[in-house]
Amino acid sequence: MHTPIIKLLNQVAAGRLSAKAAAQRLEAMAENNLGFARVDLERVHRRGLPEVIYCPGKTADQITKIISALAAAGQNVLATRATPDQFAAVQRTHPQAVFHELARLITLNVTGPVQRTGRIAVVCAGTSDIPVAEEAALTAEHMGAVVERVFDVGVAGLHRLLHHIKTLKNARAIVVVAGMEGALPSVVGGLVDRPIIAVPTSIGYGTGLHGIAALLAMLNSCVPGVSVVNIDNGFGAGVAAGLINRLGEPSS
Amino acid sequence: MHTPIIKLLNQVAAGRLSAKAAAQRLEAMAENNLGFARVDLERVHRRGLPEVIYCPGKTADQITKIISALAAAGQNVLATRATPDQFAAVQRTHPQAVFHELARLITLNVTGPVQRTGRIAVVCAGTSDIPVAEEAALTAEHMGAVVERVFDVGVAGLHRLLHHIKTLKNARAIVVVAGMEGALPSVVGGLVDRPIIAVPTSIGYGTGLHGIAALLAMLNSCVPGVSVVNIDNGFGAGVAAGLINRLGEPSS
Amino acid sequence: MHTPIIKLLNQVAAGRLSAKAAAQRLEAMAENNLGFARVDLERVHRRGLPEVIYCPGKTADQITKIISALAAAGQNVLATRATPDQFAAVQRTHPQAVFHELARLITLNVTGPVQRTGRIAVVCAGTSDIPVAEEAALTAEHMGAVVERVFDVGVAGLHRLLHHIKTLKNARAIVVVAGMEGALPSVVGGLVDRPIIAVPTSIGYGTGLHGIAALLAMLNSCVPGVSVVNIDNGFGAGVAAGLINRLGEPSS
Amino acid sequence: MHTPIIKLLNQVAAGRLSAKAAAQRLEAMAENNLGFARVDLERVHRRGLPEVIYCPGKTADQITKIISALAAAGQNVLATRATPDQFAAVQRTHPQAVFHELARLITLNVTGPVQRTGRIAVVCAGTSDIPVAEEAALTAEHMGAVVERVFDVGVAGLHRLLHHIKTLKNARAIVVVAGMEGALPSVVGGLVDRPIIAVPTSIGYGTGLHGIAALLAMLNSCVPGVSVVNIDNGFGAGVAAGLINRLGEPSS
Amino acid sequence: MHTPIIKLLNQVAAGRLSAKAAAQRLEAMAENNLGFARVDLERVHRRGLPEVIYCPGKTADQITKIISALAAAGQNVLATRATPDQFAAVQRTHPQAVFHELARLITLNVTGPVQRTGRIAVVCAGTSDIPVAEEAALTAEHMGAVVERVFDVGVAGLHRLLHHIKTLKNARAIVVVAGMEGALPSVVGGLVDRPIIAVPTSIGYGTGLHGIAALLAMLNSCVPGVSVVNIDNGFGAGVAAGLINRLGEPSS
Amino acid sequence: MHTPIIKLLNQVAAGRLSAKAAAQRLEAMAENNLGFARVDLERVHRRGLPEVIYCPGKTADQITKIISALAAAGQNVLATRATPDQFAAVQRTHPQAVFHELARLITLNVTGPVQRTGRIAVVCAGTSDIPVAEEAALTAEHMGAVVERVFDVGVAGLHRLLHHIKTLKNARAIVVVAGMEGALPSVVGGLVDRPIIAVPTSIGYGTGLHGIAALLAMLNSCVPGVSVVNIDNGFGAGVAAGLINRLGEPSS
Amino acid sequence: MHTPIIKLLNQVAAGRLSAKAAAQRLEAMAENNLGFARVDLERVHRRGLPEVIYCPGKTADQITKIISALAAAGQNVLATRATPDQFAAVQRTHPQAVFHELARLITLNVTGPVQRTGRIAVVCAGTSDIPVAEEAALTAEHMGAVVERVFDVGVAGLHRLLHHIKTLKNARAIVVVAGMEGALPSVVGGLVDRPIIAVPTSIGYGTGLHGIAALLAMLNSCVPGVSVVNIDNGFGAGVAAGLINRLGEPSS
Amino acid sequence: MHTPIIKLLNQVAAGRLSAKAAAQRLEAMAENNLGFARVDLERVHRRGLPEVIYCPGKTADQITKIISALAAAGQNVLATRATPDQFAAVQRTHPQAVFHELARLITLNVTGPVQRTGRIAVVCAGTSDIPVAEEAALTAEHMGAVVERVFDVGVAGLHRLLHHIKTLKNARAIVVVAGMEGALPSVVGGLVDRPIIAVPTSIGYGTGLHGIAALLAMLNSCVPGVSVVNIDNGFGAGVAAGLINRLGEPSS
Repeated sequence: MHTPIIKLLNQVAAGRLSAKAAAQRLEAMAENNLGFARVDLERVHRRGLPEVIYCPGKTADQITKIISALAAAGQNVLATRATPDQFAAVQRTHPQAVFHELARLITLNVTGPVQRTGRIAVVCAGTSDIPVAEEAALTAEHMGAVVERVFDVGVAGLHRLLHHIKTLKNARAIVVVAGMEGALPSVVGGLVDRPIIAVPTSIGYGTGLHGIAALLAMLNSCVPGVSVVNIDNGFGAGVAAGLINRLGEPSS
Repeated sequence: MHTPIIKLLNQVAAGRLSAKAAAQRLEAMAENNLGFARVDLERVHRRGLPEVIYCPGKTADQITKIISALAAAGQNVLATRATPDQFAAVQRTHPQAVFHELARLITLNVTGPVQRTGRIAVVCAGTSDIPVAEEAALTAEHMGAVVERVFDVGVAGLHRLLHHIKTLKNARAIVVVAGMEGALPSVVGGLVDRPIIAVPTSIGYGTGLHGIAALLAMLNSCVPGVSVVNIDNGFGAGVAAGLINRLGEPSS
Repeated sequence: MHTPIIKLLNQVAAGRLSAKAAAQRLEAMAENNLGFARVDLERVHRRGLPEVIYCPGKTADQITKIISALAAAGQNVLATRATPDQFAAVQRTHPQAVFHELARLITLNVTGPVQRTGRIAVVCAGTSDIPVAEEAALTAEHMGAVVERVFDVGVAGLHRLLHHIKTLKNARAIVVVAGMEGALPSVVGGLVDRPIIAVPTSIGYGTGLHGIAALLAMLNSCVPGVSVVNIDNGFGAGVAAGLINRLGEPSS
Repeated sequence: MHTPIIKLLNQVAAGRLSAKAAAQRLEAMAENNLGFARVDLERVHRRGLPEVIYCPGKTADQITKIISALAAAGQNVLATRATPDQFAAVQRTHPQAVFHELARLITLNVTGPVQRTGRIAVVCAGTSDIPVAEEAALTAEHMGAVVERVFDVGVAGLHRLLHHIKTLKNARAIVVVAGMEGALPSVVGGLVDRPIIAVPTSIGYGTGLHGIAALLAMLNSCVPGVSVVNIDNGFGAGVAAGLINRLGEPSS
Repeated sequence: MHTPIIKLLNQVAAGRLSAKAAAQRLEAMAENNLGFARVDLERVHRRGLPEVIYCPGKTADQITKIISALAAAGQNVLATRATPDQFAAVQRTHPQAVFHELARLITLNVTGPVQRTGRIAVVCAGTSDIPVAEEAALTAEHMGAVVERVFDVGVAGLHRLLHHIKTLKNARAIVVVAGMEGALPSVVGGLVDRPIIAVPTSIGYGTGLHGIAALLAMLNSCVPGVSVVNIDNGFGAGVAAGLINRLGEPSS
Repeated sequence: MHTPIIKLLNQVAAGRLSAKAAAQRLEAMAENNLGFARVDLERVHRRGLPEVIYCPGKTADQITKIISALAAAGQNVLATRATPDQFAAVQRTHPQAVFHELARLITLNVTGPVQRTGRIAVVCAGTSDIPVAEEAALTAEHMGAVVERVFDVGVAGLHRLLHHIKTLKNARAIVVVAGMEGALPSVVGGLVDRPIIAVPTSIGYGTGLHGIAALLAMLNSCVPGVSVVNIDNGFGAGVAAGLINRLGEPSS
Repeated sequence: MHTPIIKLLNQVAAGRLSAKAAAQRLEAMAENNLGFARVDLERVHRRGLPEVIYCPGKTADQITKIISALAAAGQNVLATRATPDQFAAVQRTHPQAVFHELARLITLNVTGPVQRTGRIAVVCAGTSDIPVAEEAALTAEHMGAVVERVFDVGVAGLHRLLHHIKTLKNARAIVVVAGMEGALPSVVGGLVDRPIIAVPTSIGYGTGLHGIAALLAMLNSCVPGVSVVNIDNGFGAGVAAGLINRLGEPSS
Repeated sequence: MHTPIIKLLNQVAAGRLSAKAAAQRLEAMAENNLGFARVDLERVHRRGLPEVIYCPGKTADQITKIISALAAAGQNVLATRATPDQFAAVQRTHPQAVFHELARLITLNVTGPVQRTGRIAVVCAGTSDIPVAEEAALTAEHMGAVVERVFDVGVAGLHRLLHHIKTLKNARAIVVVAGMEGALPSVVGGLVDRPIIAVPTSIGYGTGLHGIAALLAMLNSCVPGVSVVNIDNGFGAGVAAGLINRLGEPSS
């Protein structure tokens, strides 16, 4: 599939490696089997982003060990939906790890400073949407994007958004975060020609249905080109924007 | 409850009418029993609007007979969701009846010209929403309102709406009709201080869920004071706006 | 859009203000940027009601700062769904603030006594619906309405409601609050000719689906002119009734 | 389980019948195997009502054969949701069969006139609900009840219902049929002390969700003692009322 | 409507009472207004059962006062879904009150021993369904029925049910309580000719959807005559069975 | 992965084949690219069943071409949910193809008679469920199973099922097909120790929700070991039973 | 139905036992009535697995008594979804009982070592799915299967799964456990010819809908032969696999 | 907002244009009011794509007139979900218009040949998904992208997809179209580092819920960076991919 595997296959073809041995190396190369988890160290080559740790349902000990495996392989760490307790445990082993409490992210940088390039905008409708917006923004920054934050610009006061059109037009992609009726991505999308990643949040009550109302509004946007991620999934939106952001680079 | 009943009760108190006879008159007064239907002729006194005929599931013959009962009582007729076939049958008995095809309404005016007063705005997002918007507009006119129509001003091109803010500000109530993501009532509601009746339409597909997406968006509007009626229920919105419109009159 | 903006534009036309300077003033005028929130101080002009603070998901500190910004601009404060802890913090800075515990509202009056005029009725089906009904009633009073409360008159004992028909007929708008099967708005709506704002509550269990059953009943009322707000949204119903109530005033 | 089986078991105990032969007779006795269907001829003994034929998805030929098997066993026939075409085919073999078109029922009486006793009321909200109400009424009559029909008495005009309270109080059970918001069973249930069987209908549109709104309202009635059957299931309600009606008989 | 009201009306007709005075007495007679609640003391005459107190959302103080009002009027008390804390408070004022902890019911008998007559069966599928089944059983006993309990006879071991067919056949009505797949009412209904009140419970997980799966199964029973109440609504089923049970009495 | 691929890999290892050539052969071997479809001719080796054609959304011409490709590769053909028109077109090219109208299946046998072994039971609740049951039965026969059909044995008449327990006990797997309340798999599962594949059907109306009610009942069976396929998916159940059936063979 | 019952019936036929006495023995034999529960001791004969205890909603005392009844009858015990507290109580009476904390299972072996035979694979997508996977694995082991665990092989890194194809091909049945998008069963099913039991888990958030998204994906697998159990129902999947596993044995 | 508006504003500032005249020109410039529609001719400047015509609910005459307005303004035309009848009418006025029947698109090129640049991949799972995939592909081509089609590569035969990894890696964005279980976007997303736009289709039946199952799967992908559009919304996905594709250009 990718270069290391082709090298291996050529070794087999050259008779320098048996088929059985090749299979074993393949496994060793791609997977760091911790018993409870198989850390996918090849993912950074396939996906352009190391495996990210989804913390819910994992013990602090499991999280720490996966972080250790990634760090040992020289890969930067991003762990999502972490609790303060989980971070406290991680920090004992990895004192350089950073906790972004609002966004519930743990990051550990082992490759040195990331060179940021390209510009992403992260927009949100209300103050209550900020944690999800921050998760998106930090994720995109983790992937090397410069991020402009435009917060609390919901449709009840449109002029607040209109002041920031220039910022929106300068972004390679725009993440738009909103709960309740989820109208903001349509309004933003109607103003600019940039790809829009919409993130519904669970802010609201009753028929908000924990974000379903906002989700449906975003999926039914009358503005084409808006695409949507799961409710409260700032991380996913950040990755999508981060991948788009890289396309403008010469090396891509 | 209302005047005729109080008169009757006073007659009983005055010994001019037996309790039993009073009960019979009460029934005769209030209800025109056609066998398959009991026409509520008192409704115009209680509700300010004669009984309206919901056509689905009724035969053309039943509709015609109910219209005849209302007209005989000197009450104006409004029949909703009528088909061309139903109208054709009605017209044979009531040649003055009018069919509003786009809005699927039959009207029959027996009281002479309605004096229109007060101003209602009916706004819709797209061309496909016009039938529902027309149903609302014609209903409000039937109840005596002057109606301003502002059609095809969806949020994908906000400037189209902004040109009409003055019209919106001059209305006593605003009916806002939209399908798909249903964002328009929030945007309109953010701009003016008038009561907003939002009508979701079934325009859209897939996750639009036949209007549920628009409905949920409207119920979760971040703008307070937006209230909502059933999907495609232009008639109900027209009645709500018509009732509000009357409040501005001196007699109220 | 509204007067201060037109003035500004005229200044530009008169050459007394550069386009760039005008844009900056526009932003300053309309928005009080606190970093985490952009307080929409113009909203009172557009909407007839200052920006209202939705407390869930905000820290007590954020709420206090937004209140301070509004009060500093001379605008009355309404904060919804506040907790006792949030109020305790607010009160330290704003000792005149009032907490309406049942309705979970914080109010702070900075403009002096409100002259109440017009009459709104707030009706509820059961004792458990009272908190939502109170939220509606207090909101309408905040907007200047006189409010009549008719509580615990559910359809299981219709005579309880029938005693209050006169009160209902004298109201400019009627807010009807009910959980469980949500039948009360239809019954009230069948008796009077006033606009009805129906509020489903989450009272009930099982197939009540946290208020969805009541909501659907209200949206499908056989009585036209009933419009509906989100589940437990007494605040929104109070605003809708408050806006309608003003229409009867000479100045409207 | 019931008498014929006990007899058979006694024969086995008495040595007059082998266990194997008993098993075969048991099967023959209880089931008339037509290949595509096993007509449950014992059902009339267990359930007090012969097997009823649900027509959808069956060919006219299959329906005719099942009717023949029931008639041959001397059992009265009831077939639900029949089409005119299905009836036309049945009638060729069973000219005495009767088609109740509105209620979509086929009946064939082979036991001679049914002695009707006890009194059931069937109430419906609107003209469009009559087909379902008739299905309930005819089914209860098929089971020997006297049925009082009270149609078109929806909650939008309560006085229409109040005229019939005496009829409701005299019934052993009351079937209440309603679509849209389904409020009628609660109102009826609040007035009398009789068991109420509520039938939601699919009348309505949009958020009526083909009867789900009415169903939920009925399941959440604030009046205890209301029980509910499937949407449009007049037949099931008729059976429930018919079974209750028999309890008042001396033999029960 | 009922006797006391007719007496009043006759007094008006006889000139012994003014219309206004009659209206006031009517209100006083029917309603005990506690401010937060209007106790419906006439309900026992209309419905055959005094008003029952739904405890959730009410304070212990409110519950105690409503109990006092009912007891003062000589009516037996039933309060549902009570917590131990609520009972502890009630008991301070009403030491004779009884708490049925499993069923979460408070009862207070003020009329002396109830003469029980007629026979109801309450059947449940599993041990976890017993609290709901007990609520139904105690309610029916409160209404004067003799109750037979047949518990833990789910369809996974059919023979457990078959041992009790005689008990089922002797009941005037059968309450069948089941969670998970809710199949038990169909199986019971297929065996006997008695009215069946099915109660879905929230026992289960995942796609059980807190009782929706069982509810749908019961509403779609292939056995006609099964009617259904809300999820976990043992109380409602008990009332329905209690009302049916009375029909067999000579006085009905 | 499977033998032909391992052979190929060994050729690469032996230097008899270049890596590039191996890749091309791999593609040619596995896939018959018709432009609009890539027929997966290797599937029979991986899955033990050739690729099956799902007819909806395909033209008769596309279906015919896929059948030709499979037949040319010597693989037996099964096409599901075919219409009579689609079959008529297929038959013109493949006159030996057979149409099973009730089950909507097209089969074309090109390998000669299938040796049937092992025993599967297919049970259904009502006559209307037979088409789905037949689809399962024919699919299992297509995969080499002997199939016993036990039809129309729903829970309303349990004795009909009890006569067939021996047949059920002799089956290696039991497919149970039911609509409406979907109770039959639980009852069957409670009687025998064989794996049960439950198939909900869309038979029913209203709250049957086109088979969702039956599906939920089956997923929540109180009998462990029942597994479930999609609504009306007789084909999938037949494959599951066919795969289980093969396990009893000596070669497994 | 099964041997002991046939013996009993023969005794009746032989006159050695009265019908009444036979009925009593039948009950005693099959059911151990603890008052709150009827332990189905015959189930092991019918189903090949003793009755399993579902712990939620049962007291520790009830669980202990049911375990005692089963153990006294010489049957192995399996209790699902047990809490540590419930186990602590059980252990006081049954010190040999074992708690599998991750899988929430209590087991008590009273028949001596189980001879394991046949091979089942249990596969899961992520680390968070392991508790459900373990529940399936331990249940299958309880039923005598050898279980191969293949954990953390989700579709985001397909190569992790491909390394284990041989293990999958050697299994008689494969349990596949996945949350989120639930794609793993389709991918596994596309690779091998073994029956697949898919288990959706509630891992995920937002539109994962507590496992509904994974469930729907599994029910709609494009790979035929995948059957599905309830969300998080590792136990049910383990039983299904355990029953299939036995089919390969000579005695089946 | 954009250049022409800024020019206008400068003219006002320079005193060359009155404020009122500016407002009129603004309207004329941006909107072509056809009565039933307001064609948004400025959209091409804001959004980089002229207004696209959604055909459902519009008459052929309305569609033709909107096309004429766009063409007259020199803008290329795209009309979605058109029927053959609608196209036939359009063609009479615009003979150069082209109908893409499979994708239901009408295009009319008035600007001369589009210079295509950048590379997009459109992947679909099955033959039945091709119409939606074609809609996406043609839309992206309309926006200037080179499109690679990779069709019928569903997860039941993974090797079909693996042959095309190079094509996927060379694309700037990948549109992945799938119905049924919607697993394909996760599998594609796990292999490459490109932004993925997932399109659920309504292909499937039963619990596929007309595409909801696929939609939920895609929203819950365990692979981050997958974003989703409405069911069957190939057009929206094509726009999203087209916007992303332009980012790679030097001018962006």
